[in-house]
Amino acid sequence: MSEYRHDPLHNRWVILGDQRAARPQEFDERIMRRTGASCPFCAGNESQTPTSLLTLRAPGDGGWTVRVVPNKFPAVESMPQSNGCSAGSGLFTARPALGEHEVIIESPRHVASLSELTPEECSLTFVAYQQRLAACRDAGHLKYVQIFKNVGPAAGASIEHAHSQLLAMPHVPTHVADEIENCRAYQSQFGRPLLAEMLCQEERRGERLVLETDRFVAFCPWASRFPYEVWIVPRAARSDFAESTAEEAREASRLTRDLVGCIESTLGKVGYNYLLHSQPFDGGPYDHYHWHIELFPRITKVAGFEWSTGVFINTVAPETAAKTLRAAAATR
Amino acid sequence: MSEYRHDPLHNRWVILGDQRAARPQEFDERIMRRTGASCPFCAGNESQTPTSLLTLRAPGDGGWTVRVVPNKFPAVESMPQSNGCSAGSGLFTARPALGEHEVIIESPRHVASLSELTPEECSLTFVAYQQRLAACRDAGHLKYVQIFKNVGPAAGASIEHAHSQLLAMPHVPTHVADEIENCRAYQSQFGRPLLAEMLCQEERRGERLVLETDRFVAFCPWASRFPYEVWIVPRAARSDFAESTAEEAREASRLTRDLVGCIESTLGKVGYNYLLHSQPFDGGPYDHYHWHIELFPRITKVAGFEWSTGVFINTVAPETAAKTLRAAAATR
Repeated sequence: MSEYRHDPLHNRWVILGDQRAARPQEFDERIMRRTGASCPFCAGNESQTPTSLLTLRAPGDGGWTVRVVPNKFPAVESMPQSNGCSAGSGLFTARPALGEHEVIIESPRHVASLSELTPEECSLTFVAYQQRLAACRDAGHLKYVQIFKNVGPAAGASIEHAHSQLLAMPHVPTHVADEIENCRAYQSQFGRPLLAEMLCQEERRGERLVLETDRFVAFCPWASRFPYEVWIVPRAARSDFAESTAEEAREASRLTRDLVGCIESTLGKVGYNYLLHSQPFDGGPYDHYHWHIELFPRITKVAGFEWSTGVFINTVAPETAAKTLRAAAATR
Repeated sequence: MSEYRHDPLHNRWVILGDQRAARPQEFDERIMRRTGASCPFCAGNESQTPTSLLTLRAPGDGGWTVRVVPNKFPAVESMPQSNGCSAGSGLFTARPALGEHEVIIESPRHVASLSELTPEECSLTFVAYQQRLAACRDAGHLKYVQIFKNVGPAAGASIEHAHSQLLAMPHVPTHVADEIENCRAYQSQFGRPLLAEMLCQEERRGERLVLETDRFVAFCPWASRFPYEVWIVPRAARSDFAESTAEEAREASRLTRDLVGCIESTLGKVGYNYLLHSQPFDGGPYDHYHWHIELFPRITKVAGFEWSTGVFINTVAPETAAKTLRAAAATR
């Protein structure tokens, strides 16, 4: 059984998917860590994963460099069973868990972090994001695609081998819709995109900047939820990551990898997440929106106060975090 | 430095408080677990905590049964320094971190979980919630009070000895305001309170019920975010927990304790959180709102998808969870 259910008190959706409970948990202390021969994501073990949706090869690479496969324990389904959905009524709304859930395997080698990828693996990972995002968009029935990465048990990863995930849905999640609405309201009031103004102010003040490239600015956001949170925002006001140029995708991939490296040289090999927010495919317009990446190490626990109020307590000021990460970048 | 900062992209507040980083972390593996003589919350060590705001004694108890003290490492401050707030400008809004942050010590004995409290300790803990909630309300300048409990490191606790926390703020957090707005919209559309209708439907269907008492219904919510999440909702449509009768407070405390016991007999001694949502003090009206408790064990990790979309993936259907918890209740 797998379905979307709506919580009317909080106006949010959950995905109920009990088949996902069967997925392996490498980080569970009772299970041996798998490497090499037994890792389903390592080269040579392709038969342990479903058939590839996409295979990318770096020039001169004999095998594959990056592979995209369907998630073997998906939270959502390409063809949900019509009888698999609870009969919701009244307050209780359910929808079949239609969607796509894919895994982007970032290297044939058994490495764990983005920082351990070669530049080519890293670039091709972001090219894979673009191509699969475009494929989901072009399918027509999916309205939002979430690309995200979980590294380490604290960040919710269940497999060690470097990978990202893509989860596409037929509706836009409330949280993403709210973010987009905030951008729309800002544009309507001030006549320019919120993220463009934010980049401009961050560059002027400088104290929260971490790294800048020709096409991107990376900074610790003013109201960071997590210690050492970093946002990576393109200078070009482009809403659809799939429409970014190859140059932009490459530069974003290298910058993200560098930032992960800065976080790891500051905090050690910690767990982290990143999320790529790109426009939904529900018609738009999205000229007020920038696609962007939010990256954060998971070094703190979330407690009752945060779950209850949505207000996070962060004990590391973003100005302090940015200064530390700039120093780490300078010594790399 | 301690301040509220607003994130304009997500329209949410964070609390930046670097003095909170200094708080002891008993669950850190590098620190010895403290018990007895060295625990600041144990009887005899009252000098290790600030002066009590409230002391409650069970009949026949020589010392104290429940104590409320200011948090020694507060996220917000009763009297914030006027120069302690960043000069926000443009997109960057900051406010002094005005508020109250208190600790409710639930027993003089070194026990960890609500299930280990005596019935009197448990009742007086909820009486302390009521009295401190009323005190914050009557102070006049605070608009919302969050009472919450973190048990175990997975739930964000930093101290083992059984305690809850109260954090009062001069504004209503977005998440709470949204919940209340959803209740208001439902009442306006259907002419009755959302939570009253939910109780009615849950009782009629029965499959998600866990325990019922004269004054409360406890059920696994239709769209549970977490496995084994339970909501405890009063039958009486009362919005302000501070105005509940002594009988209601006692019954809520015993029911919560029983539910924690059911969770622990199902899952073992897991970490858990509960949160008490009660009406804000900003004028209301709140006749469409029920105060209630949300309780959930923290047995899963939150990953990038959830952080990004606000959509939680839950692998245990609430119908399954409720059936398991009912079975646990039947054998107690």
